[in-house]
Amino acid sequence: MRYASRMTTPSVPPFESLLSDRARIGWGFPVGTARPTVDALYEFGGGYPDPASFPYEGMVDATARMMQAEGAAAMTYGEPQGYRPLRELVCEKYAKFENMQAAPENIIVANGSGNALALAFSAFVDPGDAVIAEAPTFSGSLNTIRRHGPQILDAPVDDEGIVTDVVRVRLEALRAEGRRCKLIYTIVNFQNPAGPSQSLRRREELVALAGEFDTLILEDDAYGELRFEGETLPPLYALDREGRVIRAGTLSKILGAGVRLGWLCAPREMIPAFQGFLFGGGVSPFMSRVATYYLRDHMVEHVHRLIDVYRAKRDAMLRGLDEVLAGSGAQISRPEGGFFVWIRLPAGTDPRRLAELATQARVQYTPGPAFFASGGGEPFIRLAFSYEPPEKCYEGARLLARAILAARRT
Amino acid sequence: MRYASRMTTPSVPPFESLLSDRARIGWGFPVGTARPTVDALYEFGGGYPDPASFPYEGMVDATARMMQAEGAAAMTYGEPQGYRPLRELVCEKYAKFENMQAAPENIIVANGSGNALALAFSAFVDPGDAVIAEAPTFSGSLNTIRRHGPQILDAPVDDEGIVTDVVRVRLEALRAEGRRCKLIYTIVNFQNPAGPSQSLRRREELVALAGEFDTLILEDDAYGELRFEGETLPPLYALDREGRVIRAGTLSKILGAGVRLGWLCAPREMIPAFQGFLFGGGVSPFMSRVATYYLRDHMVEHVHRLIDVYRAKRDAMLRGLDEVLAGSGAQISRPEGGFFVWIRLPAGTDPRRLAELATQARVQYTPGPAFFASGGGEPFIRLAFSYEPPEKCYEGARLLARAILAARRT
Repeated sequence: MRYASRMTTPSVPPFESLLSDRARIGWGFPVGTARPTVDALYEFGGGYPDPASFPYEGMVDATARMMQAEGAAAMTYGEPQGYRPLRELVCEKYAKFENMQAAPENIIVANGSGNALALAFSAFVDPGDAVIAEAPTFSGSLNTIRRHGPQILDAPVDDEGIVTDVVRVRLEALRAEGRRCKLIYTIVNFQNPAGPSQSLRRREELVALAGEFDTLILEDDAYGELRFEGETLPPLYALDREGRVIRAGTLSKILGAGVRLGWLCAPREMIPAFQGFLFGGGVSPFMSRVATYYLRDHMVEHVHRLIDVYRAKRDAMLRGLDEVLAGSGAQISRPEGGFFVWIRLPAGTDPRRLAELATQARVQYTPGPAFFASGGGEPFIRLAFSYEPPEKCYEGARLLARAILAARRT
Repeated sequence: MRYASRMTTPSVPPFESLLSDRARIGWGFPVGTARPTVDALYEFGGGYPDPASFPYEGMVDATARMMQAEGAAAMTYGEPQGYRPLRELVCEKYAKFENMQAAPENIIVANGSGNALALAFSAFVDPGDAVIAEAPTFSGSLNTIRRHGPQILDAPVDDEGIVTDVVRVRLEALRAEGRRCKLIYTIVNFQNPAGPSQSLRRREELVALAGEFDTLILEDDAYGELRFEGETLPPLYALDREGRVIRAGTLSKILGAGVRLGWLCAPREMIPAFQGFLFGGGVSPFMSRVATYYLRDHMVEHVHRLIDVYRAKRDAMLRGLDEVLAGSGAQISRPEGGFFVWIRLPAGTDPRRLAELATQARVQYTPGPAFFASGGGEPFIRLAFSYEPPEKCYEGARLLARAILAARRT
């Protein structure tokens, strides 16, 4: 405790009155701690990738090859927009998995997609501005949006994804007030947490709405390649003809979150606006190269292997839930890909009682309210099937399902 | 040109009217392009570390050992505050090189010190706030500060570093207006670009001023370990007894800028305020581990080797400059460490003519105005001796010195 001994300890630290307005948002709430703390035997809380599938030897080999080929460039400052071969790789990925065309000039590399989304919010959102987001939406993104201080207007999600009729209502209401929506934030594939993929009709409507109301769309897609079944639909970015769509992506789910490599894909004229908020001159040239050298040789085979891995986990979790919850009134999502199952609890379930019982069973999950910007969500929970092996997905799902049945108010 | 073909190309892209206030600051000026574009034979522009000194094999070896020992943790999400053994290593570095005590709880890891500084400005600075910075100061930091929209009040630098009497005048003027200074940004060792290290007297005065005027100090130290001669003085952080000093550091100069690992060292109660702006859940667990595994075994020997490397370069550059510029009236800094020489050009030098002649000689340097927040700086240039080998530091310095003599107005 060296630190404590050298400091006088005033009851209110002197810096608090000097904090910025943005720093005061959510002050005191540690980041990312929406989940109850469980010494989990069944980790269904965060969207953690499968640790057994990381390419350990491949990364070591890629490091050695990369340092041999271009070590000096890996150890010094790089392009602020990001290592060009990584940007080329992202374009290749888009072409292979989604038949989408983009050029390296459209890509800016960021420290994970969380940082990428923050670049977009920093570039376009001032405190008090209006943005539209899905309800529910990814809790981590909500933290990022809130930090930028906008008014968040909800749009619900149904089986076809974001309900565009409600988006129109929101946009018209803003127009009536003489205001503009700065951007519409949407998760297009295997929506996190609710599960549906946006239908083609909705995609086209959303892009048309952005044009009609002169706003932008921030299209988040962290899981798109991990499709177990069903048809891959065109990204909003590919449907856009006016330069209104910014697309965020990441290597976290197909390579590993530990590399912290994400990006925005956007009209090239926008890139400098994002780059201005990437303080420090671009993302790690070393890390970018290691990831690129690995994926350049292994991307397609590795993704196909991951699809099999995660499909088996999803199936195991759904089987466990179905066996126990059939007839209970619980509504369980059937995602065609990604990492998550979303459950509407049977009527009369006590969320607090469920949290207690799940803690006893050592099952970690994320309560629904974390995903709603404007309150609500108590009847929902999100389970991640990504981390645990299939046996534990099955077992843990059964344990949690029993807890759900036991948590009904009597 | 796939992109161009799919887009209609409106003359004003539709996003421009949607940009945030912060994004409009400096809009249109690409980041970090203050230097003239030279196909440089003598690269004295940026503070690029010596490429011959990067530990190429050591990094490959560290990657292999790290993946063997803890690969799964390296490939998934880590602690938002940063990999704890890296934070321990930073504390060890502070203890060894500056006799300063800090605990891992005081450290938050960022993507290079540019990102670290941005965390501090984001946490404390709103548009229109007042901050104090040295004139001259590091141009990259000025970009970061400006993006946060404050009024930047200058304080000059002399042989003892920041002139604290002027800092007091600034603070009193703000107090008279009923305003507070949010923070004082200062580079304590081998000030970039001017060269002096802050004297102990000035350090003590600055810390006292922060207390008297109830403000904070952001102490930037990217080069402190690279001291060729002279006495290491206590950091402001070590002199502070009230929790008013935030210290920024980096591995860029002692390991390699390509790793993009920097940090803030601050009172532990402040850390959550910074963490709120580190979107995306912390800095690369993979990269942090590779750097830690390498430096854990090699830090002291590696730094001592670098001190010899950079001292020889400084000496070669100063010899070249002195041989040609003696008696010219040029004032040349004698930095006790770091990467830079700062020159006040002889009276009557035409900066534009100098730029032309230096371009012809293929010598890259940074013109003085890049380092002044409020204009001025034309009589100055900064040279980095860090990148080129000693022979080229000498040759290039002589070529540039001749250009300086030839650029006198007739």
